[in-house]
Amino acid sequence: MRNDLPIGVFDSGLGGMTVLREIHRELPAESTIYLGDTARVPYGIRSDETVRKYCAESVSFLKSRGIKLLVVACNTASSVALESIRAQVDIPVVGVIEPGARAAVASGAHSVAVIGTDATIKSGAYQRAITMLNPDAEVRCRPCPLFVPLAEEGWVDDDVAELVARRYLEELRGTGALVLGCTHYPLFRGVIGRVMGPDTLLVDSAVETALEVRRILAADGILNAGEAQPSHEYFVTDKPQKFALLVERFLGRTVENLSKIQLQTEASR
Amino acid sequence: MRNDLPIGVFDSGLGGMTVLREIHRELPAESTIYLGDTARVPYGIRSDETVRKYCAESVSFLKSRGIKLLVVACNTASSVALESIRAQVDIPVVGVIEPGARAAVASGAHSVAVIGTDATIKSGAYQRAITMLNPDAEVRCRPCPLFVPLAEEGWVDDDVAELVARRYLEELRGTGALVLGCTHYPLFRGVIGRVMGPDTLLVDSAVETALEVRRILAADGILNAGEAQPSHEYFVTDKPQKFALLVERFLGRTVENLSKIQLQTEASR
Repeated sequence: MRNDLPIGVFDSGLGGMTVLREIHRELPAESTIYLGDTARVPYGIRSDETVRKYCAESVSFLKSRGIKLLVVACNTASSVALESIRAQVDIPVVGVIEPGARAAVASGAHSVAVIGTDATIKSGAYQRAITMLNPDAEVRCRPCPLFVPLAEEGWVDDDVAELVARRYLEELRGTGALVLGCTHYPLFRGVIGRVMGPDTLLVDSAVETALEVRRILAADGILNAGEAQPSHEYFVTDKPQKFALLVERFLGRTVENLSKIQLQTEASR
Repeated sequence: MRNDLPIGVFDSGLGGMTVLREIHRELPAESTIYLGDTARVPYGIRSDETVRKYCAESVSFLKSRGIKLLVVACNTASSVALESIRAQVDIPVVGVIEPGARAAVASGAHSVAVIGTDATIKSGAYQRAITMLNPDAEVRCRPCPLFVPLAEEGWVDDDVAELVARRYLEELRGTGALVLGCTHYPLFRGVIGRVMGPDTLLVDSAVETALEVRRILAADGILNAGEAQPSHEYFVTDKPQKFALLVERFLGRTVENLSKIQLQTEASR
């Protein structure tokens, strides 16, 4: 039964786990397969062509396992490879950029700020997605490259995180909505909220993406009926122990059913 | 004339520029060629086999340009590929680990602390080099992964840098010598010195490596006589503009004679 198939979630590393967490919260009856291409992370510093090639390989793997919907839980991949991935598969494909952009515009805020990695901000993908939905929106962008390594240290809600957030976000205070445009950033929600103040709506791309997944599954009539116990599998292309350790540090959850696989190009190196 | 040939300096990215800076200070008459493999940075997350392969390609390039001595200004490459590189060339090869370890031991300090990236600390290369020179030395190690992204932000001597340094170095206070075991860390010398206090000797691997280069050139009788104006060339495998920008931010110097090249494996991807 197609309804019983898992949702596939793909990221260059482990940031996409924040998206997976929201999918589990929003759709507890659904099975999932997560693939983190940890051997070739970070994608943000690769050329578009290379990113598309890596994505194609990851998507082939998830496709071979049998999935009913694919989530591209990586901002870089979402901004440069979504079209090529959609051409590769005949199931719905959801990226992380459009859902965040849509929620920011739907909030009615005239001024929208977007924070993300250098690569995401430079790609202009959020800027395009927001102004396509509301040509009058005033979009301000700020790369916040230290948030990812801070998250990997586990320093997400302390004095260092707050000092860094103040430095980055000072110039964005007063905007109506702030899109957390990197899969790691929801971990800093508390700190970012304190710095921005109560008048700025924080848009969590992970939450919005999970809501979008629910809408599509419902519209296509392929939500899991919820009779069997859902299963969750995890695959990485390198360093499974480090992945498991960081997921525990990040999300406070133990990863079971974790395997290391080798993708095509990686194998031939 | 062999004496007129440049010194080759190789790093996975731009961190090795701190080593090059010290070579320029210590040996102003020498010409240099710098190669940063920016397309495949960071090496610290690759397997040893992959690092050795990348190094072999970079070394082939520098060798083809004609150099009289090779500096492996990358801690990861120095810890896993020095032997294979030495087997590949018939000129002196200097890594960054041994000179730092030697200076720490020569200081007479009984307790030596080493800070570096996750990969460098996990490799155990400094620990081995120090205890080989002084089996009684008490070696304490601490990875400080946030220093590299902080340096790339240019936040090397401010409140964020100081707070991060305090967090990392608290447990190392009181050690006799501290080895700055990553090419980026000399940029934090001021902050690290304030946190550690005046009783800890800071060992700068970049400075020690430059001194080692001078010693070897002198011993081999191949110091440049200093008659012709020295020339300095720079090569990277990706994103020359970003490299030039970061070097300017880091070292306050403009990079001229910068070219982008393509190494073998990179070309076949």
